[in-house]
Amino acid sequence: MRFTKKDILDIDSLTREEITYILDTARGMKEISQRAIKKVPTLRGKTIVLFFQEPSTRTKLSFELAGKRLSADTVAISKSSSSIVKGETLRDTVRTLESMKPDIIVMRHSSSGAAYQVAKWVKCAVINAGDGTHAHPSQALLDMMTIQEEKGGFEGLKVSLVGDISHSRVARSNIIGLSRMGARVTVCAPGTMIPMGIEQMGCTVAEDMDTCVTDADVVMMLRIQKERQGSLLFPSEREYAALYGLNPARLALAAKDALVMHPGPLNRGVEISTRVADGEHAVILDQVTNGVALRMALFYLVSGGTKHADSN
Amino acid sequence: MRFTKKDILDIDSLTREEITYILDTARGMKEISQRAIKKVPTLRGKTIVLFFQEPSTRTKLSFELAGKRLSADTVAISKSSSSIVKGETLRDTVRTLESMKPDIIVMRHSSSGAAYQVAKWVKCAVINAGDGTHAHPSQALLDMMTIQEEKGGFEGLKVSLVGDISHSRVARSNIIGLSRMGARVTVCAPGTMIPMGIEQMGCTVAEDMDTCVTDADVVMMLRIQKERQGSLLFPSEREYAALYGLNPARLALAAKDALVMHPGPLNRGVEISTRVADGEHAVILDQVTNGVALRMALFYLVSGGTKHADSN
Amino acid sequence: MRFTKKDILDIDSLTREEITYILDTARGMKEISQRAIKKVPTLRGKTIVLFFQEPSTRTKLSFELAGKRLSADTVAISKSSSSIVKGETLRDTVRTLESMKPDIIVMRHSSSGAAYQVAKWVKCAVINAGDGTHAHPSQALLDMMTIQEEKGGFEGLKVSLVGDISHSRVARSNIIGLSRMGARVTVCAPGTMIPMGIEQMGCTVAEDMDTCVTDADVVMMLRIQKERQGSLLFPSEREYAALYGLNPARLALAAKDALVMHPGPLNRGVEISTRVADGEHAVILDQVTNGVALRMALFYLVSGGTKHADSN
Repeated sequence: MRFTKKDILDIDSLTREEITYILDTARGMKEISQRAIKKVPTLRGKTIVLFFQEPSTRTKLSFELAGKRLSADTVAISKSSSSIVKGETLRDTVRTLESMKPDIIVMRHSSSGAAYQVAKWVKCAVINAGDGTHAHPSQALLDMMTIQEEKGGFEGLKVSLVGDISHSRVARSNIIGLSRMGARVTVCAPGTMIPMGIEQMGCTVAEDMDTCVTDADVVMMLRIQKERQGSLLFPSEREYAALYGLNPARLALAAKDALVMHPGPLNRGVEISTRVADGEHAVILDQVTNGVALRMALFYLVSGGTKHADSN
Repeated sequence: MRFTKKDILDIDSLTREEITYILDTARGMKEISQRAIKKVPTLRGKTIVLFFQEPSTRTKLSFELAGKRLSADTVAISKSSSSIVKGETLRDTVRTLESMKPDIIVMRHSSSGAAYQVAKWVKCAVINAGDGTHAHPSQALLDMMTIQEEKGGFEGLKVSLVGDISHSRVARSNIIGLSRMGARVTVCAPGTMIPMGIEQMGCTVAEDMDTCVTDADVVMMLRIQKERQGSLLFPSEREYAALYGLNPARLALAAKDALVMHPGPLNRGVEISTRVADGEHAVILDQVTNGVALRMALFYLVSGGTKHADSN
Repeated sequence: MRFTKKDILDIDSLTREEITYILDTARGMKEISQRAIKKVPTLRGKTIVLFFQEPSTRTKLSFELAGKRLSADTVAISKSSSSIVKGETLRDTVRTLESMKPDIIVMRHSSSGAAYQVAKWVKCAVINAGDGTHAHPSQALLDMMTIQEEKGGFEGLKVSLVGDISHSRVARSNIIGLSRMGARVTVCAPGTMIPMGIEQMGCTVAEDMDTCVTDADVVMMLRIQKERQGSLLFPSEREYAALYGLNPARLALAAKDALVMHPGPLNRGVEISTRVADGEHAVILDQVTNGVALRMALFYLVSGGTKHADSN
């Protein structure tokens, strides 16, 4: 198989075969980060622009390390430096970037759909690192990579997703991707945090968290994004924790070997208790490790690589 | 010929031969950005400090990419990180930088003349990336590179420069450079935006924009820097656009194959209309592409390179 | 000898032999920055994270250049980008970092002791680049390197340290290190800037500055950190300069070939006069040059290097 997508914009447009191919490639890449010299010359002489219009620490760092481990040159445009260009349209900004001949633009933007526009405007590859509340494909793929690593596959797995589904691009991308791979996704959240018609994305809505978590093979918690919720959508953190937080008692309802996942950063004591976050079921740090490998795979594949040429 | 300048501080101090030599070198460098592996080891082991005391996205990025494509190590000192060193004199800051043994310091500063001082204080090469309202030599050189590419040369060309000439280091550097190369430069702006005695720099002042643009081979528009003009120097953006904006009707007065140039970022609908900015005469994105090549040439030449050793 | 420390957290935990070994290694590294190609492949494929929670220009730049000259990949997490991760504990942040498989974390933090905690939490090497008012080992080591270079050794040298001893991690690390190497350290400051029981660290407290400086082989001035002292601890800058500033008259009391040192940035006219800072006794810029070499040595040694394998 040859990967022929120019861009990685969402999970929706990836077939089951393409997702499998990405995950296979990422497994190969993971080995590189474990070497003494964790660097291969695969993308030497390629330029990757990290264009983050929303603040980000871990995602940006993960992409930056992924690029450097493939020997690409990475340059970053931060929010503060680009916001000074007042009055410049997004199209002008990215076409200016393109004129400097990058090979890949990784972009995060507060507007849903921004990455699609950009991908149409430029000839180089575009990787969506999060657009508004819409999609975050590399996060969903690294989550899937982690599940596959632990469970061997997706077919028939029960995955529970708990938190602010409405505003979570992580949730949206995971629901689509996991369903496509054969998992059964159940979601749970306060009513105001569940979008209308979410069942059409292929998931079930659970009445309460206990129902949601019962017999789950994977419990995926979402971060409550305090910084996005000016006026709280829920009475208090404490009440949120009581009704929708993952604690040892609730985790006991899940399958014996259930995985606990979280995209980070954690609000300990809110959506997840410290005992669960640090417990034996948690694979939260594995998600971070896999994130670098998965992003290496994306860089490699959109650059025209094939699965078996990644070692040297 | 051997390029013997230690620093690139302005256009004024470059002879016609030196400008030609820089543009020749830049043409060679441009080819590198078009390769699959857009990187040569020419400046491996050299250190370039990007010392930007004024915010900048595109110029800084252009210099950074230029350095990386020559395999130099680039490190940046941003405004925010350096402004914390309150009470430290500029001389102490740059001599501290010099003590870390960089090969080239690229600097932008809000004070006209700052780069000259710095060049006297340090032994390494200094490239002025904009000092106050004074000079911006790499911008003028990339503009000249673009004109030469399209027109074959400068002799006898009519170049029209429209906008806030008084506060524009881009204008100042272009007027000097283009005149030196044999072009006839005509400027036009509201009276408050034209400095006294500008004719002594070798250009003509046009009465109005129509006169300025008529028969022009190149129309170079300047950005209205809203962020610099606390109280507006002109009644309104709309009136500015009507009197000094470049639109299709005005462009029709210029030569049939006139070039439209702009240093970016664009204020669409103010100094330039969208139809003109996206039209067939515009070479605005070519300017950006040439900027990286031109800056590679500057890095190469101040490092002691000669014109024909830049490929490998 | 083989350097077996995992981390560099303070001077306290380094033996006399280890300090000597670090300084020997740094001398070898210094030569690299003086070559035409100032880069060796020693740490190629290693990842260094610069995790600075307090603003810093020169220390961060020095570490960054040290890493690049050894061909390591460096990535920075600035205060602004990481502060957005509100609610995330320091332990979660650094364990997330660790999961991306860096080899070395260089960290600066406003809390004394933070680096010790981090070193316990992660398996990779941690270098303390300043923790609160506690320790700044790389600064003390580069100061010692500079003294050794000029004086040949430490035994019996009189070193005078003047300034805000209480709040200075530079002072604390130097007092411990220099005493351990056989120097006699005398400190002097306004009473409020001298911690109780400082004599137990092995230094003498001088009654006034003239006494402190008399016959000194090294006069080490500390920066008055105006930004840290909300309400001034001393009547005025002018009075501070009069009583505790180093001027030519005071310097004349020291040994004929005394060294004047300062960690920078300088407050000229406050703790040090311009004539002294620019005079022949000052080795302030040598300290900066040595800083890069010393940090190269630290990176090299915590990566398992031995003294004689650093050239190529």
